[in-house]
Amino acid sequence: MPRRSRSRLARFGRVSAVRDDYAHRLAIATRWGDNDVYGHVNNVEYYAFFDTLINTWLIDQGGLDIHAGEVIGVCVESRCRYHASFSFPDVVEGALRVVHVGRSSVRYEIGLFKDGVVAPAATGEFVHVFVDRETRRPAQIPPPLRASLERLLVAPVVADPPLVPDEDAADGPGEMPAD
Amino acid sequence: MPRRSRSRLARFGRVSAVRDDYAHRLAIATRWGDNDVYGHVNNVEYYAFFDTLINTWLIDQGGLDIHAGEVIGVCVESRCRYHASFSFPDVVEGALRVVHVGRSSVRYEIGLFKDGVVAPAATGEFVHVFVDRETRRPAQIPPPLRASLERLLVAPVVADPPLVPDEDAADGPGEMPAD
Amino acid sequence: MPRRSRSRLARFGRVSAVRDDYAHRLAIATRWGDNDVYGHVNNVEYYAFFDTLINTWLIDQGGLDIHAGEVIGVCVESRCRYHASFSFPDVVEGALRVVHVGRSSVRYEIGLFKDGVVAPAATGEFVHVFVDRETRRPAQIPPPLRASLERLLVAPVVADPPLVPDEDAADGPGEMPAD
Amino acid sequence: MPRRSRSRLARFGRVSAVRDDYAHRLAIATRWGDNDVYGHVNNVEYYAFFDTLINTWLIDQGGLDIHAGEVIGVCVESRCRYHASFSFPDVVEGALRVVHVGRSSVRYEIGLFKDGVVAPAATGEFVHVFVDRETRRPAQIPPPLRASLERLLVAPVVADPPLVPDEDAADGPGEMPAD
Repeated sequence: MPRRSRSRLARFGRVSAVRDDYAHRLAIATRWGDNDVYGHVNNVEYYAFFDTLINTWLIDQGGLDIHAGEVIGVCVESRCRYHASFSFPDVVEGALRVVHVGRSSVRYEIGLFKDGVVAPAATGEFVHVFVDRETRRPAQIPPPLRASLERLLVAPVVADPPLVPDEDAADGPGEMPAD
Repeated sequence: MPRRSRSRLARFGRVSAVRDDYAHRLAIATRWGDNDVYGHVNNVEYYAFFDTLINTWLIDQGGLDIHAGEVIGVCVESRCRYHASFSFPDVVEGALRVVHVGRSSVRYEIGLFKDGVVAPAATGEFVHVFVDRETRRPAQIPPPLRASLERLLVAPVVADPPLVPDEDAADGPGEMPAD
Repeated sequence: MPRRSRSRLARFGRVSAVRDDYAHRLAIATRWGDNDVYGHVNNVEYYAFFDTLINTWLIDQGGLDIHAGEVIGVCVESRCRYHASFSFPDVVEGALRVVHVGRSSVRYEIGLFKDGVVAPAATGEFVHVFVDRETRRPAQIPPPLRASLERLLVAPVVADPPLVPDEDAADGPGEMPAD
Repeated sequence: MPRRSRSRLARFGRVSAVRDDYAHRLAIATRWGDNDVYGHVNNVEYYAFFDTLINTWLIDQGGLDIHAGEVIGVCVESRCRYHASFSFPDVVEGALRVVHVGRSSVRYEIGLFKDGVVAPAATGEFVHVFVDRETRRPAQIPPPLRASLERLLVAPVVADPPLVPDEDAADGPGEMPAD
């Protein structure tokens, strides 16, 4: 197995992460409708937890103005590995860290924890590119937002570059993707 | 860059995939509430499209009985790269292929296409493990379901093994994750 | 029982409505996540069907510009009676009529039908007030939008005024409610 | 205006309700995706708040077993009036009372309050019929559940019978509706 993949697994996999590996935590209540026909929270909702965890931080700590700010964050990649299930009315403990901040992009890692359980029920990644609200072209991360992101930076477990190519190294994407 | 990673990017990245790379397609209408505050379909909903695309196939073609069948599919990993946005009332064209079928697991690749656009608006991966409904332990994929999955198999672009370790090679996960 | 209430029940209740009582119909596919733990589409999602049915009409037929138009529609009341269940992957047939158009408001009635069943699985009401996007104060319905709404007008079963007081008769609400 | 309608408006309308009119309250956090394109929480999500508020009570206080209990609650009617808007990341204060408990049905009234605001942002009604999980025929409310519901009973503002006909007076509905 090549070194990069192994290091990715170490960071992304089920074994390593515990609550203390993350810089910020937020309790997120499940809702009745999160449960699907199999009686557990649907895999889709985990991404709603990611979104909520991240954007609550950006608004509260980074001054992101989702209604009128010049710069908005759009998601260019997300990923989740599911290790154990939640079920309404569980409360999810969302944990967040930042592993890379570029000129216009940021890569987060997320852990979702269940009350009383050490290992994460899910681990995920989420990449935001900040863009101009009107043109949707990549824009520099505003200083207060950048400061809030840097407070979430943790040293990566290994020094490997991220698998996801940093858009800052290239011309950047053309049309901007999903919010 | 190690060969594995390059091949993954070739399969997962924006460049290669077109509609004809997928074995099955389904039109999925967006809903008013899919749009978020930035005016486009929220990144979370793309996973609802994955879920819907995959389970519609399993029910219609593979005889999956989500209400009473002995075996159910749970998601152990999902991933999405967002290349362009959708906005209600767009209709999403979901495209599906299978790249690996194991004893109890299957790995899908998904493309989401916009009307009149050749390149996918999003590309994703989704891994199902089939488990016993009661014990939630991995179970053999029932023959009719397996047959339906094999009809979606396409030759991978390269012969590399998947990055996600196949649970069939190991003892398999303990407690089963999200539905 | 006073006459008003009886007439409301006649219009709103399970007995009277059939597909032909509505002026417009739209097929709406269910999604995997619509099902809840009891195996049927969650009551909340019926309102997502209402929203989607109504706004698709307003955009396609009335020229509503949800991204930049000066006037937007906000919901001031909605209601649903549930007569039978849906279950993914059912396709819902949404049926829409308008029973009142005021200066700035419109009252819709909705029926949700199941394939092959004459009686509606659900009947609902939805009241839109159109407001200025910036001030959120009631605004006159623009002519093309009004024309599209009037094409959905059906003679009410009885001539009673609506139970919901028409905001046009009063000063109108202050701060505007949910979108 | 007939007396019944007036009394209904008094209970249901915007004027009368304050937090103290309700027997139970629960904080419900909004999620990023609750906001729609107009920047406020979508009208549909208010019903997700209703569902969550009610079922959390039934599970925590009434011993409702949503996974395996013999009796489940299905919604036969819901309704909401929207007086003011929420916007992520607002926390919604949900307030709940019961205005009628029958043999197999219960009618709730809900207020949704915004931090620091006396008047409710929304007021709603929700009718549950408890049914046998298998046959989906109306079933007697189990004693512990009934006791928990009776703890939420408040004297109605007026003595009028509810507009919604009580299913207990008749044979009850045939096929049971949405969960």
